[in-house]
Amino acid sequence: MSFAGEASSDVPTLPGTHSGIPAYLLEKARNAKGDVFDGRTKPIKDRQRLPVVPQGIERDDFLAALAELKVQIGNENVEINDKPLKDGWYMEHPNTHDMMTILDEEELVASAVVYPSSTEEVQDIVKWANKHRVPIFPISMGRNLGYGGAAPRVRGSVTVDLGKRMNKILDINPEDYTCLVEPGVSFYALYDAIQEKGYHHLWIDTPDLGGGSVIGNTVDRGVGYTPYGDHWACHSGLEVVLPTGEVIRTGMGALPGNNTWQSFPYGFGPYSDGIFSQSNYGIVTKMGMTLMPNPGGYESFMYTFPNEEDLAPLMEIIRPLRISMILENVAQLRHVTQSVAARGLPRSQFYSGTGPIPPDVIHAAAASAPVGDHTWAYYGMAYGPAHIRAHKLALVDAEFRKIAGARKVDPATLPADEYYFSRDRVAAGVPDIHELRWVNWAPNGAHIAFSPVSPIRGTDATRLFALGKRLHDAYGIDFFPAFCVGLREMHLIVEIVFDRDDAERKQAALDCLRDMIDEAAAMGYGEYRTHLVLMDQVAATYSWNDNALMKFNEKLKDALDPNGILAPGRCGIWPKRYRGRGWEMTRESGAASEGDGVGPAPEAKCDQGEFSGASHPYP
Amino acid sequence: MSFAGEASSDVPTLPGTHSGIPAYLLEKARNAKGDVFDGRTKPIKDRQRLPVVPQGIERDDFLAALAELKVQIGNENVEINDKPLKDGWYMEHPNTHDMMTILDEEELVASAVVYPSSTEEVQDIVKWANKHRVPIFPISMGRNLGYGGAAPRVRGSVTVDLGKRMNKILDINPEDYTCLVEPGVSFYALYDAIQEKGYHHLWIDTPDLGGGSVIGNTVDRGVGYTPYGDHWACHSGLEVVLPTGEVIRTGMGALPGNNTWQSFPYGFGPYSDGIFSQSNYGIVTKMGMTLMPNPGGYESFMYTFPNEEDLAPLMEIIRPLRISMILENVAQLRHVTQSVAARGLPRSQFYSGTGPIPPDVIHAAAASAPVGDHTWAYYGMAYGPAHIRAHKLALVDAEFRKIAGARKVDPATLPADEYYFSRDRVAAGVPDIHELRWVNWAPNGAHIAFSPVSPIRGTDATRLFALGKRLHDAYGIDFFPAFCVGLREMHLIVEIVFDRDDAERKQAALDCLRDMIDEAAAMGYGEYRTHLVLMDQVAATYSWNDNALMKFNEKLKDALDPNGILAPGRCGIWPKRYRGRGWEMTRESGAASEGDGVGPAPEAKCDQGEFSGASHPYP
Repeated sequence: MSFAGEASSDVPTLPGTHSGIPAYLLEKARNAKGDVFDGRTKPIKDRQRLPVVPQGIERDDFLAALAELKVQIGNENVEINDKPLKDGWYMEHPNTHDMMTILDEEELVASAVVYPSSTEEVQDIVKWANKHRVPIFPISMGRNLGYGGAAPRVRGSVTVDLGKRMNKILDINPEDYTCLVEPGVSFYALYDAIQEKGYHHLWIDTPDLGGGSVIGNTVDRGVGYTPYGDHWACHSGLEVVLPTGEVIRTGMGALPGNNTWQSFPYGFGPYSDGIFSQSNYGIVTKMGMTLMPNPGGYESFMYTFPNEEDLAPLMEIIRPLRISMILENVAQLRHVTQSVAARGLPRSQFYSGTGPIPPDVIHAAAASAPVGDHTWAYYGMAYGPAHIRAHKLALVDAEFRKIAGARKVDPATLPADEYYFSRDRVAAGVPDIHELRWVNWAPNGAHIAFSPVSPIRGTDATRLFALGKRLHDAYGIDFFPAFCVGLREMHLIVEIVFDRDDAERKQAALDCLRDMIDEAAAMGYGEYRTHLVLMDQVAATYSWNDNALMKFNEKLKDALDPNGILAPGRCGIWPKRYRGRGWEMTRESGAASEGDGVGPAPEAKCDQGEFSGASHPYP
Repeated sequence: MSFAGEASSDVPTLPGTHSGIPAYLLEKARNAKGDVFDGRTKPIKDRQRLPVVPQGIERDDFLAALAELKVQIGNENVEINDKPLKDGWYMEHPNTHDMMTILDEEELVASAVVYPSSTEEVQDIVKWANKHRVPIFPISMGRNLGYGGAAPRVRGSVTVDLGKRMNKILDINPEDYTCLVEPGVSFYALYDAIQEKGYHHLWIDTPDLGGGSVIGNTVDRGVGYTPYGDHWACHSGLEVVLPTGEVIRTGMGALPGNNTWQSFPYGFGPYSDGIFSQSNYGIVTKMGMTLMPNPGGYESFMYTFPNEEDLAPLMEIIRPLRISMILENVAQLRHVTQSVAARGLPRSQFYSGTGPIPPDVIHAAAASAPVGDHTWAYYGMAYGPAHIRAHKLALVDAEFRKIAGARKVDPATLPADEYYFSRDRVAAGVPDIHELRWVNWAPNGAHIAFSPVSPIRGTDATRLFALGKRLHDAYGIDFFPAFCVGLREMHLIVEIVFDRDDAERKQAALDCLRDMIDEAAAMGYGEYRTHLVLMDQVAATYSWNDNALMKFNEKLKDALDPNGILAPGRCGIWPKRYRGRGWEMTRESGAASEGDGVGPAPEAKCDQGEFSGASHPYP
């Protein structure tokens, strides 16, 4: 049923082109299962310890416990992480670590990976972990690129890879515009299933990269680029395995025989879903998600603005337009440096010097791109039938042209492979991975994100831009700022691209990030999400009233996970047995794992899994 | 700043007229402070026990504890509830009980009321309650009409009346479209403050009755009738006093010096706000709320449909229109019986028989109302500039006219006092209380609500309608169904109007409600909210997996409120010291208070505050 009075899509969606993306990342992004080694033939050296046994457990006891688990869930579903470590990069078991590690490769690795096939097997694993006091770290698909990937926070944890076998779309309801998915369902898979069923009245919302898990992205409170961009706000109903092994269903899911689990999120009594996002209080095994009605037409638009100084007045223009939903999706303003990088070419093609790439070089490189000699590129989309879009686009045009020199880009002038069309696809709910191209900026490229939240104001944008620029310059890092306006707030997303094989540049990236986090917090700006290794630091910035919120979080953790087995340290929340030096301790990354007697339960022996610690001191 | 290209309101809002509403309810609805006895001069009899001392505490100890509290927060801010009980109705202390009690008047009464002036004083009160093991029951303004009013769940609790002194609007931010309020701020007060500041670009969203607390309604997950109708989804940031006395700020509020507490709800780490809604885990002392941008025009519309059987096809029409936001606010379909009652006249004016009022009498009574000889009335509003509204209204018109005999009502034909204009005000975010008129249907009229959630489907609507009708008929109660379509779900709201002075009719209303809850649950429909005395029953319907969700709720309760002092029994959650007979016990209302040895802590003596229990057996 359509109320739009015209075709469901009147702007053609171009097929995705992936020519600029390294094969290993392409596979990683697209494919829920086996990721393929990229073919490079660097020498293989032995891993120093095989496997990395979790702290506090004897090696033999750990292996015996794994054997016990194999009996429960099948020999082939318990894999010890004892494969040789390829020098500089290891791809055979990407669910054991962070593909884009900012630390030494030996740091955040799993001891083993287990593959449950059902909620019941997840319960079995959780009970097993409690019995043996083994830290476990659940991942949906491990695609949390830039925020830690598949790596566990505590070295030697057993990774619970939910997505490999629990990857079913359990329901797509074309009348209620909802679906119910398991952790292994990617945005690509959900999109494809809807297309296969011919449900053209249903749209999904996808983040920049479509290869990740719908559940994983949502519980990390990720966002996308249609009007349904706030994934957390769009979910309805969770099934959660608690850290002690019980399973609950939230909202209407708790009512036997209900037919509203995916239609009404709240149910009766405390609305507990939120404490299972960005936390370590439970393992989400099913999630309901609402689907957007096809808006009856859509139309991308792009404007560019000449000067860095246009940022402040632009934000003042964007704020009321966005809050009023005249700008209907996340308002994105990207800097020319990132626009150049998004073409997928290495920096070395433009510049051979060290230090940040000079502005004149960037502008020369951008000459053939739509942003051209300008500094800022705005990507947006209008939704609805043509005359409804025209109303909104006219308001936007009148406002944007208040910036002297503003230019509207004509898509007809752009090549099919241009980044603009990737934004067009994503804003229309079509999964894509073009965004990854900018990791090619560095050899062996990887990235890590700084993402502070601020009001949508010129003054805040200017202050954050200046902060990031100054610290990037100080550390000799190219600055890729993109301002993303959610609704009443914006996230400045700064992606630092680095060479995974260059320890010095990795350290510079990490130091730069740590400085940005602290300086931003001092100005009142906090991260909405962060990388595993920065979680303690970021959590510590939310310190109002003598860290009252963290004390509350720890109280919940102790009540729900008395043995402290579930994802210790995730989002800065450490179970009791890992604490012990008070608040200050947990602010330091690796707090529970530094081999100095902190953390392990009294009876524990930490002779194997200790954190090497050297590569990420804080501050 | 306006993007609408036309006046901010192009349909005049008529001033509220309140001629049909009893003075006592008018005062109650409008005024945060002293409510006035309605002037009736029935004989006063002595209350049987003065005061009702909380279970488990000796009278002298309790009075000594109150004296201690008076020293802390001021003599005049601690009131013992020892006033004489007026026969049949008592109005001098409406914050001590449910104005619309469905039980015997002696049941759900407070022992005392305390009036904190600040978050710090709320902390003092909570610490005092822990010291003396006194159950406390926080209210914002106590206007939870139909769901328990100001009454505590446990007889003899000390009511913490937050709203009397904590009634400040702490911020209205005209750039971010947000505000920050204390518990005593009503929808009227917030609306008035915005008008006084001349912020015509800011709208509030108001529920049917505008006299209640913004915080109180939101934490009970109430709804309103603009596109911002889901109040819980529209809040941003809480300040909460925990049951052990600590105070936290959620979301960005935990970051010192932030300027985004009201702009970005989530912050970093677990999003804990939800567990403070419909619960007894904390006392909300401040809340941020987002404000809707003036849509640049609005236009009410009303359709009527002839037959009861039109319900099913109408729901099929409404569902996709609502999910697509062509119907932009809560879609409301009201039965003719309620339309007649909304005129504020007593049933006795139309019918003197007992049992449900016959359909022909109702239709005769409706002849002069817009619904006339029809059965269903739809009230809606379109938002935006005229040409945008016209697009949506045309789609709605084409769809609604698929129902044979559908009639669009011309507002120009209606008198200014017609209910239509109340719906018009509410849907434009203008607080109103016309809705209360239908309590006049019964002498000494009061009401209590049945509000199950279902999908938006003809089959579900028909089943729920038939269930309600059959049980109302069986108990001789007039049936007032209204279907309210949130977005992907609908609530059937059935208000039972009863005579507070007629014990037999109160019992019939309660029995009817209990039967409806159980039968609806057996069909898979659960309540989204319920009256205090029905909370155990409703909570018990959310029983999936051996009551796993309630066990989880109890685990949180025990962790956060180890002494069990905060609102014991609210939403069916009993603290440990009130439990003791397992799950089945808590399903029976008054579980902890029946004087049979259940509930009080081992050292407690329950010689005074026991529940009389007689008037609300379950089942």
